[in-house]
Amino acid sequence: MIGKLNHVAIVVPDLAAGTAIYRDTLGARVSEPLALPEHGVTTVFVELPNTKIELLHPLGENSPIARFLEKNPGGGVHHVCYEVEDIQAAAERMKQAGARVLGDIKIGAHNKPVLFLHPKDFCGTLVELEQA
Amino acid sequence: MIGKLNHVAIVVPDLAAGTAIYRDTLGARVSEPLALPEHGVTTVFVELPNTKIELLHPLGENSPIARFLEKNPGGGVHHVCYEVEDIQAAAERMKQAGARVLGDIKIGAHNKPVLFLHPKDFCGTLVELEQA
Repeated sequence: MIGKLNHVAIVVPDLAAGTAIYRDTLGARVSEPLALPEHGVTTVFVELPNTKIELLHPLGENSPIARFLEKNPGGGVHHVCYEVEDIQAAAERMKQAGARVLGDIKIGAHNKPVLFLHPKDFCGTLVELEQA
Repeated sequence: MIGKLNHVAIVVPDLAAGTAIYRDTLGARVSEPLALPEHGVTTVFVELPNTKIELLHPLGENSPIARFLEKNPGGGVHHVCYEVEDIQAAAERMKQAGARVLGDIKIGAHNKPVLFLHPKDFCGTLVELEQA
């Protein structure tokens, strides 16, 4: 069912510093910061030849990643996102497999339908599925 | 400098269960388990169209991932691996940037030269560089 690895999301305590690490130290192509107030994050895309790294920093009150940063003040990998063809079918398959879908299908940061899966059901890793 | 994301490594407490999650629940293509005693891990490759996920489980005494599993008994993302053209040049660039290389350049699990970078210098993420 899952297709490409769409992105790896890394929460960073300092977006400018994190961007500099990927741009200057690692020599990757990075985007300008993009504020996504409806998702409570500011993001910088690190564009690799085969996938993306997304650097995330909390934006505004009630950011969904604020608690992660409190627990991991130096930052860390927040989730991995796999592409699926049909998000409804994916949600159904997860339920039938007994895997916990967190909340409902939503429109994600790329304006595509997404859902999140419980880390305890996926090897300790928060997994996002995105309808590609 | 960095090229493709070669793989994301996820440490799992139960290799058979982790394999089943990726194969049966997520519907991905997975390899047979491969014991790599010289690296202290058994690995299963999850083959995605654009990159790989590597499920890792400790093998033998002194496995380099045993402590990670003690701290994260449910598993979790252990490192991300980016490809580089020249590992020696990469090591030199890291040192000039003031980023800590952990130990020396070694031959990694894919029989290619690799090095590891300190998570504190890379947004809380253990980074492997592999000469592709």
